[in-house]
Formats: sequence, C-alpha cells, structure tokens
Amino acid sequence: MRDVAVIGVGMTKWGELWEKSLRTIFVETALLALDDAGVDRIDSMYVGSMSSGLFVGQEHIASLLADYLGQAPVPSARVETACASGGLALRLGFMEVASGMSDVVLVSGIEKMTDVNGYEATYALGTAADQEYEGYHGITFPGLYALIARAHMEKYGTTREQLALVAVKNHLNGSKNPLAQYPFKITVDSVLNSVMVADPLRILDCSPITDGAAAVILCPIETARKMNKPVVKIIGSGHATDSIALSSRKDITWLEATYQAGKRAYAMANKKPKDIDILEVHDCFTIAEICVIEALGIVEKGKGGEAAENEITYLEGKIPVNTSGGLKAKGHPVGATGVAQVIEIVKQLRGEAGKRQVKDSRIGMAQNMGGSGGSTVVHIFERE
Amino acid sequence: MRDVAVIGVGMTKWGELWEKSLRTIFVETALLALDDAGVDRIDSMYVGSMSSGLFVGQEHIASLLADYLGQAPVPSARVETACASGGLALRLGFMEVASGMSDVVLVSGIEKMTDVNGYEATYALGTAADQEYEGYHGITFPGLYALIARAHMEKYGTTREQLALVAVKNHLNGSKNPLAQYPFKITVDSVLNSVMVADPLRILDCSPITDGAAAVILCPIETARKMNKPVVKIIGSGHATDSIALSSRKDITWLEATYQAGKRAYAMANKKPKDIDILEVHDCFTIAEICVIEALGIVEKGKGGEAAENEITYLEGKIPVNTSGGLKAKGHPVGATGVAQVIEIVKQLRGEAGKRQVKDSRIGMAQNMGGSGGSTVVHIFERE
Repeated sequence: MRDVAVIGVGMTKWGELWEKSLRTIFVETALLALDDAGVDRIDSMYVGSMSSGLFVGQEHIASLLADYLGQAPVPSARVETACASGGLALRLGFMEVASGMSDVVLVSGIEKMTDVNGYEATYALGTAADQEYEGYHGITFPGLYALIARAHMEKYGTTREQLALVAVKNHLNGSKNPLAQYPFKITVDSVLNSVMVADPLRILDCSPITDGAAAVILCPIETARKMNKPVVKIIGSGHATDSIALSSRKDITWLEATYQAGKRAYAMANKKPKDIDILEVHDCFTIAEICVIEALGIVEKGKGGEAAENEITYLEGKIPVNTSGGLKAKGHPVGATGVAQVIEIVKQLRGEAGKRQVKDSRIGMAQNMGGSGGSTVVHIFERE
Repeated sequence: MRDVAVIGVGMTKWGELWEKSLRTIFVETALLALDDAGVDRIDSMYVGSMSSGLFVGQEHIASLLADYLGQAPVPSARVETACASGGLALRLGFMEVASGMSDVVLVSGIEKMTDVNGYEATYALGTAADQEYEGYHGITFPGLYALIARAHMEKYGTTREQLALVAVKNHLNGSKNPLAQYPFKITVDSVLNSVMVADPLRILDCSPITDGAAAVILCPIETARKMNKPVVKIIGSGHATDSIALSSRKDITWLEATYQAGKRAYAMANKKPKDIDILEVHDCFTIAEICVIEALGIVEKGKGGEAAENEITYLEGKIPVNTSGGLKAKGHPVGATGVAQVIEIVKQLRGEAGKRQVKDSRIGMAQNMGGSGGSTVVHIFERE
C-alpha cells in the first residue's frame, strides 16, 4: 500500500445557511479544497452524510454532487455511519489512494440540518440510536448521553463543573475560529444556568444543529512532496463498531469502539498516546469528550473529567483537544464533522491555524464517533 | 493490487416480509453466505442500503448489523448510491481485499420497503431523483422511465410489445427461481392489459416493492483456490456517475453512466461485450433493460427493443440476460439488488443455478443502476 497525503482542505462558515441549498454548500467547499490543493480534476470522490434523506429529502447525493462540481462521470460514493460518516469517508478515500486504484480523491462531508423543524431534526438524529430498543421508546440523544454522564459522575466522581469546563474550553478555542457557528466565549456559570435538556446535561453541554460541509483532497505522498506546502501524511487509520444500543454494553462510561479504533490507528502509525501533539475529538456533548480521551488512552480511565479542569487539554496545555472549537462551538453538521476535524489537524500541522495555532505540533489525531459510540473512526496524521 | 474471489453467497426468499425485522433478514442472509464460504469470522463488512432512514426509521445500520451478526468491533460501512448501493458495496469490498487492507470481507445489501405505505415508499424512492428539479414538481420514477420509454419508441421505433417481452422473459426466468418474489410466468397480453402506471408503462412493466437482503463473502484468490468449489474471480469493476436529473442529459435514451462504468469494467477485465456469457442488468422498468444492453455494447444503439423479441436474451439465446428473473420477477429491495445480481452470476458460473442453469458460462457481468441512471456500477466475473 502507498503512503497518502492530504494536499488540500476547504471549509466555509458553518451555521444556519437558509439561503443556500445542499448542492451550493458542497460546491463552494469542494472548490476551496481543489484550489488549496492546486488541482482541477479528481479521479474519484466520497461524500459522508448521515441522513440527507430525512434532512433534505434527497438521497443519491454522491452523483448529484459530483455532477454539480462538474466532475461526472467520476465514481462518487456516499458513505454513512451516523455522525462518523465524515471520518468513514476519509478512511475509504485513504484506502482508495493507498491501494493504487486512484491518485486524486476528494473526500467530503455534508449535512444540511436546519431545513426541517426541531422535532424532525431530533427524529432524524435519533435514527443513529437503536430505534427498536431506544428511539421508539422515547429517548433521544441528549437523554442517552445524560445516562452516560450520570454514570460517569457516580462511578468516577466527575463533577457538573468539570462537564461545563469542556464547553468553556471549546468555546474559548472556537472564539478564535472565524468559521465556527458560535465563535464566542462562555463561562462555567452560563453553562450551569443554561436551560436543562436532560439532567445533568444543559443546552450549553450540547453541540448545535448546523448546516455545513467540509472537503479535503488526498493523493500519493510523492505527488504531495512536489508541492510548495508542508506535507501532511495519514499514518494511521482505525475503524470499529459496537452495539448502537447503550443497554447492550457492559459499562456505558466506556467507549469500546473508540478504544478499538484508536488501538488500530496507533498500531498502523506505530505511535502511542503520548506521541500525539494535538487532538480533535467528537464532543457532541461535554461528557463525550471526557469519555473519548479516556478510551484513546490520553488520560487514565475515570480521569477525563479532570483534564479540562487542570487545563491539560487547553490550547497551551500538554495536549490541546478541540483547538477548532470542537463540535460544541464550531457546530455539528453531522456528516461533515469528521472531515472538518481533519481540516483543523492539517491547518495546525501546516502552521495555518491563526490565533489558535499550537506551537511545534507535528502529530495530530482525529476521532469521529457515531451515535452514542456505536461506531468510531480514528486517524493519525504527521507533518513531514 | 491482489486478485479477489467471491467464496460465499447467501440469499433468502424475497417478498413482503412483515414478520421479520431489518436485522433479522440481514442476519439470516449473512449466515447463509458465511456458511457457504466456510468461514466464521470476517475482517470488515459493507452494507448497501438506499434509504433505511426513510423506509424503517433507522440509520447507522452498518454498526447495528455488524453487532447483530456477532462481528462487532469489525469495521462496518454503509454505502449508498440509490438503487446501485449493493453494487457500490461490492466495489468497495473488492477494493479493500485487493488493496491488502483486509482478507475476508462480507458485502451485503438490504432494504425493507413494505413497513411503510405506498405513498411513503414512492416518496422514499423519489429521493433518488433530483428533488429540486424533478421530485418536488410531482414526477415519480415510473414517470421518469415513461419519458425514457416514449423517447426510445419515437427515436428507434421500439414497440409496446417489445417492452412487454422483456417482462415476459424475466418472469419466465423468475418462474425457475424459488427465491423470487413473483416466481410465475406472464404473457404479453397480461402486460398490455395490466393497469396503466405512467403511459406507456403499465404495472407489469415495473419492478415491485420488496423486502430482502443478499450477502457475499470476498477473499484473496489464493485463499479461494484452497477451497473445494469452483473459483469465481472479480476481473473488472467500473463505477460512474451522470446528472441524476433527466433534464440535464443530452439524450435521455442513452445511459452515459452505464456506458462509462461498462467501459472501465471491460478495460480492467480486458474483455469485450462479445466475451460476456451471462448478464444481470438493472430492469427496474422494462425500458431500462433495453437501454442498458445498448449502453453496455451488447446490442447496437437503438436495437435493445429487438433483443427480447428475437430471443437472443432468453435463457437459451446468444446472451442470456437476467436469468435470475431480474428486478421484475425476483423483486427489487433497492439496496440489495446489486448484491443479488452477483449471487446469480456466481451461482451460474458455479453450475448451481438449477432449472435456469445456462450451459458453459464462464464470464458473467452485473450492471446495477441508481435512479434514472445517475449512477452505475458494473462488475465482470470469471470462473477459473
């Protein structure tokens, strides 16, 4: 298998983009990535999208978007594993270039979530849970993550303030990201006094509903080396599954799929948790970031709550987590999130992250998760 | 890249399976494929499904199904390109084994379409068309294919009877397939007197709404050669896209994506149309089979209508097409269709097709199409 590099990244401002359609958002983003890569043709493309069928009444978007980008008849595949669809798209694009089947592959993620009302959006997101054992009985994602949070607090003594600090940190980072949906700071008090969604989670513990897309261009490393930019290589890829229903898990505070995907990615990259300089994780809820950094071995089991409190995951900390603002502040157009994480890592490793630039970072990791952890995709990147 | 073989196939009877859930149908089918392959573990899996979100209110099925098959934490990806989702799943599974990333990959397709009412099913299928330019204005798939049929009749003199003969042939084949949804013969008269759906297409020109799944197991050719079965190798794979809206095409009687995907598959396999012994094509409507065999170069442009009339596509003809009964008689659970086509080809090449066995077939082709032709995946298989 060949070594693969990310040579172009593209993202536009995320938010409630009512004046733009799915295809418009995609094309704007993909053109930015092509421009950044300095290429005008692709061999193949992938689109990660969780539920364009339920959100905008449109399936078959892989062909639709290839056509609107002026790239038909290239092969174009839509892939889905709930909120980890973007990470999955990257993994398959990586595999296609690594295998030698294609040279230039566009990997994108997209979701347009605000064209439906709140009830419909909650239903669409709920299809990432086990409908027969969870959804049809009335539980939604804030409820599932609230169960995880409550269990983590009981088992490890994680506090309500520690949850809030994850949101505070990510908004602080997000305030330095002009493309974020909510680029402003918040305080622990504002989190603790925000509207209750599912006890103990309040509205400022939750990532928002967002319209957005993200795109990157992959190619063989030899091609990337000829370009006038720092070379960012994909050195590890891991993907794993778990039961999508919480009730089937031995310990709901432990994200087994994240552990397994991380293990595979570390093994392929020949790296350990201590080698990672920067990390983007799937903080769909504050408790998620806490559980994820434990499952990835960044902190000990049960110690995730202390990480933001001790500021080790802050921009200036030992291992900055979610320098982009995370899902919390940047926004969470579900299918796009996994690709946007990659963009943040690439920008950081290239030294193009502006006010939120982490000094001397060479190895970055992105962890993208579906549902309450039923699927996870992890990638590790290295700047040459 | 490594050579890849299909070593196991599994399919259960298709139809209106109201007593079984999506996960049950999948597991039954996947176990048959594993049993046929003689393996009890997989490295990775793919699930082709067009719209589990709209049909059964469940996304994230790749993880759900891997878990119910007892295979979590293996990587599992759902892929979609409308009705060509099954073919796309095969292509990605093929790529994964060919690349050396995995050794044993399960490729499946599934759709459970009869848990919703007719209006909802028509809406869900309509999401494969361009909703902004087609669907929202009221046209459905029978209407789109009726436009193609009318144009083909005007341009090439294709007759109403020739359309009917495609259905008659496929039902004749289907009457010999015990797993088909409608395993019985029909006559030209019954087609011509059946209910009008969208002029000139009548109900017996249309494939049905079906619940069903299909699964195959892929592995490197060296592994397959050690087994006690005829070895069926994947020698060509092509995937191409086109505008999903008919109005954007120069000639609506010509399936450009099928032509492009066929061209790529022929090139990879180093074969020509005349080398193909048996062919499964995407006859979602009778006119589709006519246009597809033209685009694949099996007959000349405009001569597709004569093929069934002259019986060259019959079981005993020069090139048997849709020996399984096709989508018309076998049924069309959209995401499963592309994988079921592969199963028919493998059974024929192995000499296991029972009453519908074609003698001396060594090279088979499967063509799976999304929407009105906006995506197509073509594979070529050879028995060693």
